[in-house]
Amino acid sequence: MSDADQQQPAPATAPAATQTPPATAAVGGIDLGGTKIEAIVAEAGTYRVLGGARHPTPTTGGPADVANAMAAALTEAAKAASLTPAQLRGVGVGSPGTVDAQNGTVARADNLPGWYASFPLAAALHSALGTDISLGNDVGVATDAEFVLGAGKPYSSLLGVFWGTGVGGGLILERKPWHGRGGAGEIGHTVIVQGGRHCPCGRRGCLEAYAGRAAMENRARKLQKKGHDTILFELAAEHNRDRLTSGIWERALEHHDKLATKLIDRAVLALGAGIASAVNLLDVEAVIIGGGLGVRFGEPYRERIAAAMQPHLFNDARPPAVHLAGLGDLGGAIGAALLVK
Amino acid sequence: MSDADQQQPAPATAPAATQTPPATAAVGGIDLGGTKIEAIVAEAGTYRVLGGARHPTPTTGGPADVANAMAAALTEAAKAASLTPAQLRGVGVGSPGTVDAQNGTVARADNLPGWYASFPLAAALHSALGTDISLGNDVGVATDAEFVLGAGKPYSSLLGVFWGTGVGGGLILERKPWHGRGGAGEIGHTVIVQGGRHCPCGRRGCLEAYAGRAAMENRARKLQKKGHDTILFELAAEHNRDRLTSGIWERALEHHDKLATKLIDRAVLALGAGIASAVNLLDVEAVIIGGGLGVRFGEPYRERIAAAMQPHLFNDARPPAVHLAGLGDLGGAIGAALLVK
Repeated sequence: MSDADQQQPAPATAPAATQTPPATAAVGGIDLGGTKIEAIVAEAGTYRVLGGARHPTPTTGGPADVANAMAAALTEAAKAASLTPAQLRGVGVGSPGTVDAQNGTVARADNLPGWYASFPLAAALHSALGTDISLGNDVGVATDAEFVLGAGKPYSSLLGVFWGTGVGGGLILERKPWHGRGGAGEIGHTVIVQGGRHCPCGRRGCLEAYAGRAAMENRARKLQKKGHDTILFELAAEHNRDRLTSGIWERALEHHDKLATKLIDRAVLALGAGIASAVNLLDVEAVIIGGGLGVRFGEPYRERIAAAMQPHLFNDARPPAVHLAGLGDLGGAIGAALLVK
Repeated sequence: MSDADQQQPAPATAPAATQTPPATAAVGGIDLGGTKIEAIVAEAGTYRVLGGARHPTPTTGGPADVANAMAAALTEAAKAASLTPAQLRGVGVGSPGTVDAQNGTVARADNLPGWYASFPLAAALHSALGTDISLGNDVGVATDAEFVLGAGKPYSSLLGVFWGTGVGGGLILERKPWHGRGGAGEIGHTVIVQGGRHCPCGRRGCLEAYAGRAAMENRARKLQKKGHDTILFELAAEHNRDRLTSGIWERALEHHDKLATKLIDRAVLALGAGIASAVNLLDVEAVIIGGGLGVRFGEPYRERIAAAMQPHLFNDARPPAVHLAGLGDLGGAIGAALLVK
């Protein structure tokens, strides 16, 4: 993995690109996550990935440092495709927090360092990369990618559920993204146990309080302190992780760690109830399961989540199709690239 | 109140209507409920109500008997408007159960007598009334009515919540009804307490298990048997009701009946959690509260429900507008009339 030192800022103007466009028109996509930045360069139109890079998200500093790391990752991805950023038609970004696509700003990205106030991310990346920048919501663009290119292709309506640090949701209704007044998709904050567990959002009983990786880590720490045995934190230390990543959870399950098994089992039941409630309300054709844990756990957990939905489905004779995200880990970055017109 | 004896079946063909249409083109609407049939005749276009009638829904017999009672109610409503059914442009019907609008059939209307198998309701009403019949889902047409003519007029997206015997939901997204694969809107079966109370639907922890009038009546009976004091059932007997109607609940609250107060308080909290979860997912502009209990309890409970939503809203700084149904009790019948082209 590289870090921000490798950044090769492109000139503010990109004469080579404007005078002779590359034979293959290419676009860039950046998925800005709480732990990693995933960047790709893809062929326009087909979205075949020509190059990629994954950098850790800075845990200190502020939005400008994060923007630098994003520019570095995208520059590396372009290099892998034998291109410079300025040769790209544009770069799309899927960001957490409150995204104002029109003004190119992001605010309240709680999982990113010092990022509460509005930051002009599009302008910062434009000046670093020398190409047009388009912003979108991380979960929204990942859902779009699954609809356009992934497991959602056969359907006209679907719910994307991204099971990772949190539990995010995205909606396609009548073949179009549904954003409501801009904040739709918060399936992680479906109340599944009124008055239940504390959620990282500050509320109680949300789906994310039971199924989100961050909430499960908090819970595991608490239970360990109360005397429950677990190898979760030893495994994390062994693999030099300061967080319980999806890989750490997977390893703990492989070791039949009781506490990890119990928490993941509870998460699956919570996902079943929350997703079934959304399906009862919307009656979408398909549910696509993605996110760090979703992609990592794969097919057996797709089946378990579908089974956990079943007892709560009002039309239980006609459940929606439940698929794994077809684009895996790259869905967010490919979806971001789709933002480039 | 009249009964089916007053039915005046119109001739199968309606020469008067086809040769000289009435000066004011009129349409009919029937809201088929579990306890009552609400029929109206309204001016086409403006949907000004010209005449109405309310008949009790038969509690014995089968679909044919219910269809007869519906025809009788509509005939009485037409008479009140100095018209015959055959003079109407058509009659719309909002029905519970599984409605197949294309084929004019209704199946699995669980709250109606002997109505499990598919019954050709449109054909039965057409032959009794001599005019075109259009079928729709009861909650769906009531939501449409609020959107077109009621409290939902200013909005392009809304969630209708009908708080009565059950808890029904209807959606308008981008100014159009959203039905999903035909079964959308089941907000009553949002899981609000995983593993919680038994719901009349046979599942556990649904919103309706806490807020539906039928579920609350079951709960009140159970708690009374366990020794809890309540005047609910005395009030029902006094008013010759074999069910706890919305009016009985209202009277019990006015008498500060502890058990009734406790159950209604719990229902309000349940509605708050369930509706907030739907808003978190869809971010609609407005929520419209209707249904027997919703309309009966009115403004103070609209405020209470909005307040109960607040702690569960993810975007709590920007809650949706929450309104009472503008068309009150008649929304279902007016919505049914909207089905007539």
